[in-house]
Amino acid sequence: MTIPIKVNGQRLWQTIEQMAQIGATDKGGCNRQALTDLDQQGRDLFVRWAKALGCNVRIDQMGNLFARREGLDNSLPAIATGSHLDTQPTGGKFDGVYGVLAGLEVIATMNDHNIATQEPIDVCVWTNEEGARFSPAMIGSGVWSGEFSLEYGHSRTDKNGLTIAQELARIHYLGEHACVPEPIKAFIELHIEQGPILEQENKTIGIVKGVQGIHWYDLTLYGEPVHAGPTPMATRRDPFRAMHQIIADLYSLVEEYQPWSRVTFGDICADPGSRNTVPEKLTLAVDLRHPDQSALDEMDERFKQIVQQRCQQWHLSRDIFTQWCSPAIEFDEHCIAAVQKATQRLGYSNQRMFSGAGHDSVYVSRVAPTSMIFIPCKNGLSHNESEYASPEHVTAGANVLLNTILNL
Amino acid sequence: MTIPIKVNGQRLWQTIEQMAQIGATDKGGCNRQALTDLDQQGRDLFVRWAKALGCNVRIDQMGNLFARREGLDNSLPAIATGSHLDTQPTGGKFDGVYGVLAGLEVIATMNDHNIATQEPIDVCVWTNEEGARFSPAMIGSGVWSGEFSLEYGHSRTDKNGLTIAQELARIHYLGEHACVPEPIKAFIELHIEQGPILEQENKTIGIVKGVQGIHWYDLTLYGEPVHAGPTPMATRRDPFRAMHQIIADLYSLVEEYQPWSRVTFGDICADPGSRNTVPEKLTLAVDLRHPDQSALDEMDERFKQIVQQRCQQWHLSRDIFTQWCSPAIEFDEHCIAAVQKATQRLGYSNQRMFSGAGHDSVYVSRVAPTSMIFIPCKNGLSHNESEYASPEHVTAGANVLLNTILNL
Repeated sequence: MTIPIKVNGQRLWQTIEQMAQIGATDKGGCNRQALTDLDQQGRDLFVRWAKALGCNVRIDQMGNLFARREGLDNSLPAIATGSHLDTQPTGGKFDGVYGVLAGLEVIATMNDHNIATQEPIDVCVWTNEEGARFSPAMIGSGVWSGEFSLEYGHSRTDKNGLTIAQELARIHYLGEHACVPEPIKAFIELHIEQGPILEQENKTIGIVKGVQGIHWYDLTLYGEPVHAGPTPMATRRDPFRAMHQIIADLYSLVEEYQPWSRVTFGDICADPGSRNTVPEKLTLAVDLRHPDQSALDEMDERFKQIVQQRCQQWHLSRDIFTQWCSPAIEFDEHCIAAVQKATQRLGYSNQRMFSGAGHDSVYVSRVAPTSMIFIPCKNGLSHNESEYASPEHVTAGANVLLNTILNL
Repeated sequence: MTIPIKVNGQRLWQTIEQMAQIGATDKGGCNRQALTDLDQQGRDLFVRWAKALGCNVRIDQMGNLFARREGLDNSLPAIATGSHLDTQPTGGKFDGVYGVLAGLEVIATMNDHNIATQEPIDVCVWTNEEGARFSPAMIGSGVWSGEFSLEYGHSRTDKNGLTIAQELARIHYLGEHACVPEPIKAFIELHIEQGPILEQENKTIGIVKGVQGIHWYDLTLYGEPVHAGPTPMATRRDPFRAMHQIIADLYSLVEEYQPWSRVTFGDICADPGSRNTVPEKLTLAVDLRHPDQSALDEMDERFKQIVQQRCQQWHLSRDIFTQWCSPAIEFDEHCIAAVQKATQRLGYSNQRMFSGAGHDSVYVSRVAPTSMIFIPCKNGLSHNESEYASPEHVTAGANVLLNTILNL
């Protein structure tokens, strides 16, 4: 058994710090949203670094970047890694960026050790993973994998009505390569966990066996706007009457599907929103998740039954708009095994787990064998300027990535 | 027993229609917010009509208008009536306006019949009753009665930062008369009910014995913003966990204090309001009402206990900000009796009731004997462009007002 090769953790840490300066926020986070001037600067820096490592960089029609280190036989399907460089408006330095820069570090380490691989290696940067500026999330990998059409991807708009195609052209990242999957032997995405499990379990590496299915709904209940004072309680059609029960029912529903089910109410809005008028309209954002698609489908059905029952009870009309469904994914057993083998050889504590968050790997896994590697993040925080991963964990994850690729 | 004198209902209806043209909305309502150009036009029209009826018009430092018909002995305290001319942004033609214009119709009818009164008669127009442009509501009568200082009243701002004093001066209604109560024998305010009770009971006149006490709160619960996917349900500090229970508890609480208690949740806001992040902050507008002050005080105390208990249960911090407390008011027995006598002599079906809405009469009643007269409005709707009262009811209410004043 050979000794595993190790990356240069300090060099990787420095690139993360340097990238984080582009869009740095006062609170130590990063605001570098997709296809902004800052995203352009981040991409430019990535391309400069990749070229300095001897890579060539392809840009496709969705602005996805592929930095390639040639293999001994470039006719073979590539081994790919990477993630995204765009951030949330109040994002951190690690979400996405870590996986991209660790990919470059893997190549740098191979260069250091004069390692040649049979297959070429691609480090991918997927466009608009966060979905913060353009909805839906993961649109770059989504179009690439065939989940969305190119026309759909190009025509998504931000809140000012600017399209992805316009903004790609403006920042000079509207590439000519077709946005379609080329043959890939394996795709391994390295990412911070964005949750507290590894930290709580005191594990260094999460071996990700799949991604939770995600359903996003807008639930709207319609009542009658009446004056808060004179209108007797019994004659009101008040959407809060049903809404508080639906929320309670959903917490109970998710309890039945523990430990992996999730429900989150991230937003709620009352219309007209006057404190002395019963709302005419109450809209709740519901996020339901489960790693088992059949369980998620059951939850979906029971959610709709709950809404129907509560609205009938209170004589309210309602609308359930399904914003997005990302199916539960189980990753490729061979890729998972490769990650596990690398982790064990490196001697890192680890556990198998599901990803609660969506990732580009969800779409990539539709067309290529895929898995992910997680490292802990402090207090489980992500989508937060305080997001933090320790240098030790950052290095460990990159070591697992490097040795997984070498295993493959 | 003499035959009651009757107003000219058609003439009154025409003035309501004419006033409603100033700020008329497409949906048949009225948008004539306080101290706008349209409010200036409405005031100008009122002043022109009042002067045509032989009244002189005083303007005080808060822009309150007093149109006076002289009595035989002008040293006696006046008998006063009136209401307000400002509307909600999507308001109706009757709320406030009806009481003001019925006051002018009463004077017109007295002129028609050459009726002289011992006391002078004042028709009042109170500034910014609605509170839609400047908060708090009922600021004109509030300063006049001593509830608020003149400086406080003058310095209230709209959302563009314009003050009441600035806007009064701009529209030429910053008067010189001191904004203090002059001796008043009785104040009788005529208004649409703004609720469904009279319509349901098929009664023409509501004899208002008091106004519900009103408490306005902003309840804020603080949680921890974490990612909707990876974060286990059990480790979250999710403000919705306590919020849905607090809402349920408040509905139950109000049930114990029926039939007159009210709770309304008119607005709610999640921060940061991202669908895949647990809210850091959830703010609910709570409107609690009861006509019995001691009952309202009990409800206030129990509301705070509920919040404390639920937040402890879910490890959330919270803040209860009391926006406004308007105490429960019982009107003057002599004024109530005068309204009742006039109603009975006119042969109108009637019932005694509380007002669920706040009115200028709440503040006026602090310094003068006061009561109110209600007429039904269609489907109980108010603060709504569909607000409607029938010509028969409009006439009936004005007849009761006229004869109440004559009784006094």
